[in-house]
Amino acid sequence: MDTENNSSQQQNRGALYIVGIGPGALEHMTAKAIAAIVASPVIVGYSTYLDLIRELITKKTVIGTGMTQEVKRCTAAIDEAARGQKVCVVSSGDPGVYAMAGLVLELIKERQDAGVYPWSDPAARPIIEVVPGVPALCAAAAALGAPLMHDFAAISLSDRLTPWDLIERRLNAAASADFVIVIYNPKSKGRPSHINKARDILLKHKKGETPAGIVKGAARADETITITTVSEMLNHEIDMQTTIIIGNSQSYTHGGWIITPRGYKLDKPGKATGSGQN
Amino acid sequence: MDTENNSSQQQNRGALYIVGIGPGALEHMTAKAIAAIVASPVIVGYSTYLDLIRELITKKTVIGTGMTQEVKRCTAAIDEAARGQKVCVVSSGDPGVYAMAGLVLELIKERQDAGVYPWSDPAARPIIEVVPGVPALCAAAAALGAPLMHDFAAISLSDRLTPWDLIERRLNAAASADFVIVIYNPKSKGRPSHINKARDILLKHKKGETPAGIVKGAARADETITITTVSEMLNHEIDMQTTIIIGNSQSYTHGGWIITPRGYKLDKPGKATGSGQN
Repeated sequence: MDTENNSSQQQNRGALYIVGIGPGALEHMTAKAIAAIVASPVIVGYSTYLDLIRELITKKTVIGTGMTQEVKRCTAAIDEAARGQKVCVVSSGDPGVYAMAGLVLELIKERQDAGVYPWSDPAARPIIEVVPGVPALCAAAAALGAPLMHDFAAISLSDRLTPWDLIERRLNAAASADFVIVIYNPKSKGRPSHINKARDILLKHKKGETPAGIVKGAARADETITITTVSEMLNHEIDMQTTIIIGNSQSYTHGGWIITPRGYKLDKPGKATGSGQN
Repeated sequence: MDTENNSSQQQNRGALYIVGIGPGALEHMTAKAIAAIVASPVIVGYSTYLDLIRELITKKTVIGTGMTQEVKRCTAAIDEAARGQKVCVVSSGDPGVYAMAGLVLELIKERQDAGVYPWSDPAARPIIEVVPGVPALCAAAAALGAPLMHDFAAISLSDRLTPWDLIERRLNAAASADFVIVIYNPKSKGRPSHINKARDILLKHKKGETPAGIVKGAARADETITITTVSEMLNHEIDMQTTIIIGNSQSYTHGGWIITPRGYKLDKPGKATGSGQN
């Protein structure tokens, strides 16, 4: 059991939780993510995501900044935790999928290397924990039925942090090996034509009638779901809040769903099975 | 508002929830997944996964079968829902990632095509909803720090439902385009050497010192985390409950984490930043 002294040290120890709040609606958050936010007096995040959890953070110190201020925001969070504060950095979806987990850990390494925080005694370091969440790709897939189900690749079309030729190389590789493909960040004002180039690459390897699902604001109040094909996908509204899932060669549509078979041999349907446990 | 008659119809309408229970510990389940299970008198799933939610299902009809009886299990679930029952098919992780969402929807299509369930009136059809969960890949990534963070490919090494040459083609494609790679089902008694072949393919395209994270039982009581390299990965215990994450060319290790940089330009660390909102 902790001595009083140990308890007091524990209370002064900061904590930095890098939390995924899931795709949008609070019902898709995990209990652990909610507990981390409730336990933390300081909440840090991109303003648009903070709005999704507004009811959880009304009495907290909120450090919210705009889209391109990630480094500033995450540095402030680390410094607060180093002072002994409990802090959550929140990301929508999962913090490890195109979100803040990497940047926070990169910044911690930089500050350790530079001697700002030596933290040679592990007990003197804040608790640092990544709390996973439901990523946008799973929320979008659920809205579309079952389009993933087999090997898939996730590719972001944003070239803000990645050279465009590497993005093209990955699109070609994934499409040529018949992966299901999840496209993040398909379009923004600064790069409206990337999705057109991506579509052309897909068509080099996939049939035009391959199912394409377009989900805007997955699991949010304004969710819209479009099921179309690779040939037709550019005729639909696509923006930065959109996730696109492109099927593999086996994917098909049925009853408002995209289904990618896993490969199970299906029994010939006869009459309904009997009830009971087995 | 519903009339009494409508309410009565609603009560007789079956529901089939295809639910992701997350990686293991109940704290990683979403509120929506818990609500779906609580609302459903019939719970269907692979026995190992049902054990993870035992405390939620003590008073329910449980249809639990072994590993290779997926078709039997999902057919029984559909038939129960068609009779007006509320049913959950549970999968660990997310139901759309190598799990049951696809098979359930495939079986529904088969039974509709065969006329077992015509369901031409949408109101007469059971409610069918996929409830997303935290996939194993996100739980494993969180345990390892931030290894995903950039474009990634998920590949299963199980050739029970997929020809091995297609798996090899995808490993080659993903490794050659410098994707982070998540390996599901790396090893089982029936195919102990697949992971060796996969490692050899990875080494054709990736450096031997590329970080590799091995997570067994992510977010479960017996979770084990190993951080190693592609060269050394086969010296560690790997089994069917293991998820392996292989970095890209930029990934590195630091302080017990694998970090894949997203590409942000980091500020030179100076002194700690000031506190306050901005």
